[in-house]
Amino acid sequence: MNFTIKNTLISVADSYVTTDVQVVDGKITAITPNLEIIDTEINGDNKLLLPGFFNAHTHSSEMWQRGVIPPLPLELWLAHLYDFTPLNTEQVYLSALGTAVETLLSGGTSVVDHLVLIPGQELETIATAVRAYQEVGIRAFIAPLIQDESLSMGIPNGESQANHEPYFRSLGETLAIMEAAVKQFHQPEAGINILVAPTGIQLCSDDLFIGCIALSNKYDLCRHTHLLETKAQEKLAEEKYGCTAVQHLQEIGFLNSCTTLAHCVWLKESDINILAQTQSTVVHNPLSNLRLGSGIAPILKYIQAGVNVTFGCDGASSNDSQDLLEAIKIGSILHNLTEPDYQYWITPRQAVKMASLGGAKGLNIEDELGSLAVGKKADLVLYDLNNLSLLPRTDPIGLLVLGRPVNVINSAWVNGKQIISNGKITTINIDELRQELFNRSHWETQPKSANVDKLAPRYRQVMGLN
Amino acid sequence: MNFTIKNTLISVADSYVTTDVQVVDGKITAITPNLEIIDTEINGDNKLLLPGFFNAHTHSSEMWQRGVIPPLPLELWLAHLYDFTPLNTEQVYLSALGTAVETLLSGGTSVVDHLVLIPGQELETIATAVRAYQEVGIRAFIAPLIQDESLSMGIPNGESQANHEPYFRSLGETLAIMEAAVKQFHQPEAGINILVAPTGIQLCSDDLFIGCIALSNKYDLCRHTHLLETKAQEKLAEEKYGCTAVQHLQEIGFLNSCTTLAHCVWLKESDINILAQTQSTVVHNPLSNLRLGSGIAPILKYIQAGVNVTFGCDGASSNDSQDLLEAIKIGSILHNLTEPDYQYWITPRQAVKMASLGGAKGLNIEDELGSLAVGKKADLVLYDLNNLSLLPRTDPIGLLVLGRPVNVINSAWVNGKQIISNGKITTINIDELRQELFNRSHWETQPKSANVDKLAPRYRQVMGLN
Repeated sequence: MNFTIKNTLISVADSYVTTDVQVVDGKITAITPNLEIIDTEINGDNKLLLPGFFNAHTHSSEMWQRGVIPPLPLELWLAHLYDFTPLNTEQVYLSALGTAVETLLSGGTSVVDHLVLIPGQELETIATAVRAYQEVGIRAFIAPLIQDESLSMGIPNGESQANHEPYFRSLGETLAIMEAAVKQFHQPEAGINILVAPTGIQLCSDDLFIGCIALSNKYDLCRHTHLLETKAQEKLAEEKYGCTAVQHLQEIGFLNSCTTLAHCVWLKESDINILAQTQSTVVHNPLSNLRLGSGIAPILKYIQAGVNVTFGCDGASSNDSQDLLEAIKIGSILHNLTEPDYQYWITPRQAVKMASLGGAKGLNIEDELGSLAVGKKADLVLYDLNNLSLLPRTDPIGLLVLGRPVNVINSAWVNGKQIISNGKITTINIDELRQELFNRSHWETQPKSANVDKLAPRYRQVMGLN
Repeated sequence: MNFTIKNTLISVADSYVTTDVQVVDGKITAITPNLEIIDTEINGDNKLLLPGFFNAHTHSSEMWQRGVIPPLPLELWLAHLYDFTPLNTEQVYLSALGTAVETLLSGGTSVVDHLVLIPGQELETIATAVRAYQEVGIRAFIAPLIQDESLSMGIPNGESQANHEPYFRSLGETLAIMEAAVKQFHQPEAGINILVAPTGIQLCSDDLFIGCIALSNKYDLCRHTHLLETKAQEKLAEEKYGCTAVQHLQEIGFLNSCTTLAHCVWLKESDINILAQTQSTVVHNPLSNLRLGSGIAPILKYIQAGVNVTFGCDGASSNDSQDLLEAIKIGSILHNLTEPDYQYWITPRQAVKMASLGGAKGLNIEDELGSLAVGKKADLVLYDLNNLSLLPRTDPIGLLVLGRPVNVINSAWVNGKQIISNGKITTINIDELRQELFNRSHWETQPKSANVDKLAPRYRQVMGLN
């Protein structure tokens, strides 16, 4: 679909101009006033056009447990999550749709889904997510979540010797599944990308990381992993490697310019230098870091060291939403706590750039996406500045990032295809989605988790909680 | 208006029940299943009924500057705010309407407006806010913001001797205005309350505090002030009193069980004991504390010490919104950073109680408001649990507090009068409000502030910023 957006506000340098934007064959072909309309006219009056944001780290199927897991730190929260993880592809399908919709309705046009796989139905799980994302039309980066160690290994041993069950699937099988997934589903031009995504040093052997590096090199895939989300993981890395997790990942060659690292809360100064050298990207997930008490990622230090940073919502049961504007807001203002000199605080314009170009850079596609520029792909979002939550009129980007915008997305396009029009998703039936989510769930109070009861004593002991 | 809500979910102990709720003459008269309908039936199917929340600290006219003030700490942010504060009652009217509407649409039925007064039109400003709140129908606690020292006195001197301009209005005039306001507008039974509200130790003399105490005693008024929002204020209190601000306020008799204290970020352990002894209430404004880099208020310590805590949005240009659910969410999960033992973390149910009963307690009306109980006034909010942002169904209160609910308020009542019906404000014309806010404003980039340029050098020097 070709179209011309007439008289939209866009951001230039430190101000705004009103202009026209033309899109032909999925790409931006002109940004200048008084353009002739090609095919379809989009009314840009009183609207702001921005590049689409990246929801650069989430786990879609967690949507089934949002709101229900009690206040717990990551290690025990994860134990609770495992107790009640959905086990059928129909749920995977619906939560992928829900994740895509909430991302789109909060300014995101791309999602990195660190996708939890149903044991024994791994390729079916991936196929299901692919189907959901294609139906909605969001640009998808599916990062199948793999590991080769069992859950209890994610908690440091401390003084004790713990016994761990072996992981149910062999390393070889896991890598074979990954290679099959790449062959079947990796189609960047169709908007579906597969990433290699070992869950993190806490539950993965070196062999798994190395197998992923080989696949990444062979098929030109981006890499994704959790990194040092909690203090417990920092301890664990020390036990496991005798050095920091970042040093170890650098040594085995996992870090490069197409690697995105979720969280990065517990890094040392020397680790930050390694991220800068290797041109790795940090994905900041401020809401889950608060919810799980993980800590404040030193984002201002990353920025000052030249490390690329972007934002993610993280899975919906550690957030417990998929509102990218909320993640961008909190992920910007949170750091004012850590730095007394306000000259370093993140500005709303800087936050928008991190959420758009920062995301594209992390996925090695900054030449194609992440900004409004002629020649780039048309992943665009048009915000309605006449919405009550963005009034009175002041600085549109300030209102969008620092405010609490509600129902402000007028239109969104991915690769030039319109997915939101007049505030409504056009590609799928939202009422049906709502009905399906309703029918397959029930209200409950926070359930007790046997896994949490089992792991809590060791966690409390290792972390010095009495 | 009398009505019966049929088959609504309500929270009891640690679970939920479906029941009916009857309201007659503005009060809850029955909560039990199978009630006969009196006058009007309200369909409670798939909905959750909660007591209305309190937006326990805001400054309504800041709405005119939301989104536009750059990242600055309180003292300089305030200087920027002063440069561009609205100066006519029409703006006061519209921003009070906007503040009331956003509060209502995020679950609040009461607002404490620490109202900035137009110099020379103080009583007109208050009258205007009263009119706006009565038109919308929200329960209003208007706390005219008074001071008797000029802005530059709010920054500690450090080593230097600064000269300060005298404040433009005398103490006597200010107190006379306050007394006139009480006589004209204080009508608790009509839903309009006047509070005495010196802005804070940073800009008020002891004589002003003492004058406010006298008015509070004479007319049985609640008290409200900012307290130790920033590290600079902690320093200033030490310079001014040679003791902490809390010790000083206790000594002069300002603290009692109807005193609400906004912020309370920089208190010592001994100060916390004073708050507990005096039964003062802390109003937690997490979003402005992040936005202005003020710090994390030690809310878990307050709770453990038995201090009553509730939530506020703070003014819309330090937040930059009036979404109470956002303040409750961030105000709950933020503290997980400060306490390693998750057993002390705030649960969603605890947060709801703080936002409702905690607010009522701070305003000395916990016998009348703040919970669903027979005999209490009917300030009620009915949430639509069939909304996409609250699906799939899990724990309704968990979803409401930890999620990012959008358009979830089905109905709201204040004193039994319906103000929201089917998600729409029924008392005022929202399209007209939107149009007025639009017409009286313009898009702009962040303007330069002469006040900030003037104060920044001293601020940077005193705070040790180079």
